Amino acid sequence: MAVYGRFEQDGETAWGELEDGWVMEIRDIFGLRQRTGRDFAVGAVKMLPPCEPSKVLAVGQNYASHLQGRPVPTVPPIFYKPVSCIVGTEAEIVLPPDATDAHYEGELVVMVGKRLRNASKEEAAEAVFGLTCGNDVSERVWQKGKGPDGAGKDVQWWRAKGCDTFGPVGPWVVTGLNPDNLRLDTRVNGETVQCGRTSELIFSVAEVLAFASRYVTLEPGDILYTGTPGVTKAMKPGDVVEVEIEGIGVLRNRVVAG
Amino acid sequence: MAVYGRFEQDGETAWGELEDGWVMEIRDIFGLRQRTGRDFAVGAVKMLPPCEPSKVLAVGQNYASHLQGRPVPTVPPIFYKPVSCIVGTEAEIVLPPDATDAHYEGELVVMVGKRLRNASKEEAAEAVFGLTCGNDVSERVWQKGKGPDGAGKDVQWWRAKGCDTFGPVGPWVVTGLNPDNLRLDTRVNGETVQCGRTSELIFSVAEVLAFASRYVTLEPGDILYTGTPGVTKAMKPGDVVEVEIEGIGVLRNRVVAG
Repeated sequence: MAVYGRFEQDGETAWGELEDGWVMEIRDIFGLRQRTGRDFAVGAVKMLPPCEPSKVLAVGQNYASHLQGRPVPTVPPIFYKPVSCIVGTEAEIVLPPDATDAHYEGELVVMVGKRLRNASKEEAAEAVFGLTCGNDVSERVWQKGKGPDGAGKDVQWWRAKGCDTFGPVGPWVVTGLNPDNLRLDTRVNGETVQCGRTSELIFSVAEVLAFASRYVTLEPGDILYTGTPGVTKAMKPGDVVEVEIEGIGVLRNRVVAG
Repeated sequence: MAVYGRFEQDGETAWGELEDGWVMEIRDIFGLRQRTGRDFAVGAVKMLPPCEPSKVLAVGQNYASHLQGRPVPTVPPIFYKPVSCIVGTEAEIVLPPDATDAHYEGELVVMVGKRLRNASKEEAAEAVFGLTCGNDVSERVWQKGKGPDGAGKDVQWWRAKGCDTFGPVGPWVVTGLNPDNLRLDTRVNGETVQCGRTSELIFSVAEVLAFASRYVTLEPGDILYTGTPGVTKAMKPGDVVEVEIEGIGVLRNRVVAG
């Protein structure tokens, strides 16, 4: 088990291994993972979101507790979030002025460490680099519409799930954990609003990655949001949303009006 | 007016300006656009797709001739294609074994040259770096389903529009053209199957970019597929699909079975 993050120092960004309050710079994170010998106190550098993906996949409807009577999907319902929506822990979630129903969605996020194309479930499981927490912020009017005629629904979820800051990820990536049985809690202003275990996932991490890789080549560093449990509610400016996953840590973001 | 492309030489990739059969290497393509002094005969280097975007936006239902009775959208129906689907001219379009109804969609593709956030239409128009041709390959069963119950329809278009090779772009990027009145033709095996003018776009290039930038920050190099005119049909292995746009050139791809 190791803990990795990205940081900025003197205008340069790098990966680092976190240990006992220190960040030890790492080169070739998806390869040999060599320490460069440059170490920094955590407080002396600016920590960044712990990923730099070429693309962000996400899967919806992946917990029975979130389906609310909808049928269980027969294949993983995948979608994309744009890389521009990613922010790290302690960053603000900025609600666009015309977003009226933006929900939290606490999720396990998986980072791929190897190129995956037409992978088996075993190959996909073996290609997982590490795990982190994510919040798949979702504006429900743009996603689903409102009222009997579904007014305001977009054709696709490009802004419902993709606005700037709608992809909090962090605080760091942890290797060596089993993604298939971790406890996940989401809190708003300290009150628990979602809880689940990744053992409840309808499509496991390996199943989603293997299925996706039949169509879309996954690159080292690409990330997958794995779905959210239970019922979600709208966030309002001033709220502090925390996603905590056993063995990883807490992703914390404050909501502000844009 | 200038013509830019990307190429590979001795394992390094770079941007170049194309002129009279030569590629002149360019550094800082979205900034000072300096020539490095390294020039190559076009035949001596491997030409690549003329883009390296951080994200790929696309807009659907943007020509009245493509709507086929559907209502005119009130906001641009935007979606994402993953960067992994991009290929250049002369690359193969590889149909996944279970893709049964993959259509061509000839489109004008716009490359952004400046960061755009909350941009006005004027700012968006001014931020266009250049134009190229694109084929927004679309598998209709995954996109829309089939039969009265819409069997096979995915929740989102992640594979319908995003499979590897479903994003041909090229052959190069041309600056200094007016994106608002260019003739577009798509040919399959030499026969014209789509034609239109970008003056028929429901949402102009500047309107789509400005609207998108209210939610999603666009970065230099990001590209936008602007929509397809008329009616499309399925491609089959062996087909050669060409998208030609006035003043730009011809994007040519052969279809093969995966």
